[in-house]
Amino acid sequence: MKITIAQINYHIGNFEGNLQKMKEAVNKAKKEGADIVCFSELASCGYPPRDFLEFSDFIAGADDVIQSLASMTNDIAIVLGSPTVNPKPEGKDLFNSAYFLAEGKILHIQHKALLPTYDVFDEYRYFEPATSFKVLNYKGKKIALSVCEDIWNIDNSNPLYTVCPLDEMISQKPDFVINVSASPFTFNHAQNRIDVLKANVDRYKIPIFYINHVGAQTELIFDGGSLVMSPDGSVYDEMKYFEEDLKSFDLDAVMSNQKSNERAKNKIELIHDALVLGLKDYFDKLGFKKAILGLSGGIDSAVTAVLAAKALGEDNVRCLLMPSQYSSDHSVNDARKLAKNLGCQYDILKIEEIYQSYIKVLEPHFLGTAQNVTEENIQARARGMLLMAISNKFGNILLNTSNKSEMAVGYGTLYGDMCGGLSVLGDLYKMEVYELAAYMNKDVEVIPLNTITKPPSAELRPGQKDSDSLPDYEILDEILFQYIENRKGPAEIIAMGHDEMLVKRILRMVNVNEFKRYQTAPVLRVSSKAFGMGRRMPIVGKYLS
Amino acid sequence: MKITIAQINYHIGNFEGNLQKMKEAVNKAKKEGADIVCFSELASCGYPPRDFLEFSDFIAGADDVIQSLASMTNDIAIVLGSPTVNPKPEGKDLFNSAYFLAEGKILHIQHKALLPTYDVFDEYRYFEPATSFKVLNYKGKKIALSVCEDIWNIDNSNPLYTVCPLDEMISQKPDFVINVSASPFTFNHAQNRIDVLKANVDRYKIPIFYINHVGAQTELIFDGGSLVMSPDGSVYDEMKYFEEDLKSFDLDAVMSNQKSNERAKNKIELIHDALVLGLKDYFDKLGFKKAILGLSGGIDSAVTAVLAAKALGEDNVRCLLMPSQYSSDHSVNDARKLAKNLGCQYDILKIEEIYQSYIKVLEPHFLGTAQNVTEENIQARARGMLLMAISNKFGNILLNTSNKSEMAVGYGTLYGDMCGGLSVLGDLYKMEVYELAAYMNKDVEVIPLNTITKPPSAELRPGQKDSDSLPDYEILDEILFQYIENRKGPAEIIAMGHDEMLVKRILRMVNVNEFKRYQTAPVLRVSSKAFGMGRRMPIVGKYLS
Repeated sequence: MKITIAQINYHIGNFEGNLQKMKEAVNKAKKEGADIVCFSELASCGYPPRDFLEFSDFIAGADDVIQSLASMTNDIAIVLGSPTVNPKPEGKDLFNSAYFLAEGKILHIQHKALLPTYDVFDEYRYFEPATSFKVLNYKGKKIALSVCEDIWNIDNSNPLYTVCPLDEMISQKPDFVINVSASPFTFNHAQNRIDVLKANVDRYKIPIFYINHVGAQTELIFDGGSLVMSPDGSVYDEMKYFEEDLKSFDLDAVMSNQKSNERAKNKIELIHDALVLGLKDYFDKLGFKKAILGLSGGIDSAVTAVLAAKALGEDNVRCLLMPSQYSSDHSVNDARKLAKNLGCQYDILKIEEIYQSYIKVLEPHFLGTAQNVTEENIQARARGMLLMAISNKFGNILLNTSNKSEMAVGYGTLYGDMCGGLSVLGDLYKMEVYELAAYMNKDVEVIPLNTITKPPSAELRPGQKDSDSLPDYEILDEILFQYIENRKGPAEIIAMGHDEMLVKRILRMVNVNEFKRYQTAPVLRVSSKAFGMGRRMPIVGKYLS
Repeated sequence: MKITIAQINYHIGNFEGNLQKMKEAVNKAKKEGADIVCFSELASCGYPPRDFLEFSDFIAGADDVIQSLASMTNDIAIVLGSPTVNPKPEGKDLFNSAYFLAEGKILHIQHKALLPTYDVFDEYRYFEPATSFKVLNYKGKKIALSVCEDIWNIDNSNPLYTVCPLDEMISQKPDFVINVSASPFTFNHAQNRIDVLKANVDRYKIPIFYINHVGAQTELIFDGGSLVMSPDGSVYDEMKYFEEDLKSFDLDAVMSNQKSNERAKNKIELIHDALVLGLKDYFDKLGFKKAILGLSGGIDSAVTAVLAAKALGEDNVRCLLMPSQYSSDHSVNDARKLAKNLGCQYDILKIEEIYQSYIKVLEPHFLGTAQNVTEENIQARARGMLLMAISNKFGNILLNTSNKSEMAVGYGTLYGDMCGGLSVLGDLYKMEVYELAAYMNKDVEVIPLNTITKPPSAELRPGQKDSDSLPDYEILDEILFQYIENRKGPAEIIAMGHDEMLVKRILRMVNVNEFKRYQTAPVLRVSSKAFGMGRRMPIVGKYLS
């Protein structure tokens, strides 16, 4: 038996586009003599469809895809994920299902039982869990179909769930497992997946065909890396990361394999490739080509520009250098040098006159007040407005260049440097941005060395440095990581050896700046806890604030 | 037996503040000779605590509240909601529980079984559902404790659920029900609640004491209106709406009551009072006093200003009038008249010079392009920046004045008129804003009549009117309502008699503008489907777009 995995970049709600890609893959698989071709979770409608699932018109669109594909199955079987209407009045309206199409019809449907409802996942908002688990027969083989999370509760050891779907199926003696997934990227998740597949194979001693989604959907990046694992737990094949891919596998060869083809994984390289894909798909799926960003001479905008140039092509990235009276010469020089290295268009627009025009209007109302952060914000906002003006006039999407450390503590100006349609680095702590910059420069100095070595500064007042108001980023990042990723409270973080006053000050800054993060762009997610849909905090709370 | 209901405005995570308020209520109840005093759902920590629940430090704070209150119960019993750690490894980490404290200790705990996970609710993200249901005995009475949603599945007729907690308890013959709730306001929800209580009482023939939360938590407004219903289904008492309240009830009197004390409910009056509370609490809970907003002479900013003056006091509301070269005289006059009517400080700041300073910087880059929406956006953004500058300098929170109709179709400038910390009217369609204005003017002309009668215009180019780019608001609002509140697809809306091209154009506008709404302020929620946390849409989808 030959099984083809089609690892495809779907587009949410774009039923025609998704169907077209799947048809092409079916035809390729037929040419390769496949018996079964497999697509990923909710392939018909794209993942995550979110509240579009509440529209029966949307569900009808997914059903049409199923019907069209079923009509192609006289000489091949097709496996894909799609929503199913729950026929019973009680329970949620839908199931999240794996479909097995063959002989021109729907031969089998297996619903998902384990519905992730944590972090970025909201599946119990929409779906009723499966309660029955049946293996299907096809061409003399017994196949256990399963959907994503359903293989993530091995031996009932996952505390979130009380059912183990494959345990329920194993008494029916399946020959192999097909798992349709939409498992988003985090920098350590590819390894987690292999570990989970291994644990399943160790338990059941049958091969698994694991089909992941590839491509980014706003903030979620799906990294692909679909897997075939042999019954001895070796990786028979690990498909491409961050790219579409199609491969056919002979079941007998998979059964008898004994050597592992696992790929090496490097954190920063994975993050780099994930962000490039995240950027590219945000533009592609919205139908835009051109980006714009402000280059300050600092590291965040430099790294963002490099990523944008890789994702969109240097001709599609426009940089604005917007010095003020407080900008140092090296800032403009470093920014210019980077733009030249990348081959991107850059323009220098001075903001001082705009700043002065605001001050002139505001002066009578500011009488008797001292200069403070207000005047700094006006500069940051003048830059944001210029970027938005060019963006509006020429159809560029503005890229936000904030990093996770500054987003966490609110070190940024709302409607100023926090503007932008997509936050590229918002899930990278400052020290990770440095690591990424070093990775980019490993062969040739793309980012000017001075951008990397000089002390970070917002340059909104004379001689300003980040370290005037923030602790060293090594310490800040570690405290933020314990609070954000690990959900440690102040006592626990202090017990790790951090200064009590500093910990309390930082956690307070995180919490009182929730209102700023609420209004920022979606953040490309690369960690296990990114700002945005996966981290839901009250704005008017009074916890640690 | 005497039962006191304490309807309190809690603050999320403010354990000390919440405890203090509850202690005062306990002491009052003791003075009134009560046997039991009841608080609402998750009263210890405030509702909704959202991802704060993932911090064990936060749960410890709630437990401390329980311990402190338990120590007050030698001569009174206390009922309140608080999270409980799930002792079992499997399942979610917490339960959402009703506590019964008496004799100095925790006498009984009943967990919640029905966990709303739809619209604004995410309870299954955090909580494991209850599987056991036990009535408790106290002073010779049997009491069925329940939490909010647990009374919302009468006769298992609610399609979302498969358990009916009170059905499970009724065989234990309870004398009455205490339901601790945190049920947020929508303009028809107070009536829904009475209907649900009636259906429960009709089924079980025992009285219900229903304790609701009052007060706003960012976008969610809890309206209070705690209820006591007699066994014959009559409303024995309906407590205050939008205010804290404390009342003691004699159980025998409740048992024998036969007349209804239901209050009249008027949609626009309820919305008005809800928005005033929503505004007030946003400021109070963040520790701010002063608001600022731009007055354009139009209806949205006028209605927002009236609400702000009521919520915060006219001395705490500052208005900026920011005419451009395209502003009509009547705009400034109408705005000035309103500010004077309200007694609010107002200042006139002209934006033309700021606008020109941008144009001067941009001119070389705009060579050969035609004027378009870019130049309109610069005006809207110059206004936003001036408002933010005053806001930063003097500590005002900027109020956003967008209505739901324009937020829906993206008729507004990101980082311009879409700025602000809180969206006051973002859940009111334009026609509802007119209704609210009429209600405000019912006794005296607070809002200048001209503001109400003139055709809506953004005044960003000469002679511009909303109707140049949008259909009449009567039609627009109806189509939006069918799509947003009723989740109807294009075919269904067209079948209602609307023009096909228009419907498709409007739904497309809604969907392609998701990126703008993603970056706007939290919206005070008054309808069953507000923009924000209750409506989760992909940005890069291609559905109806």
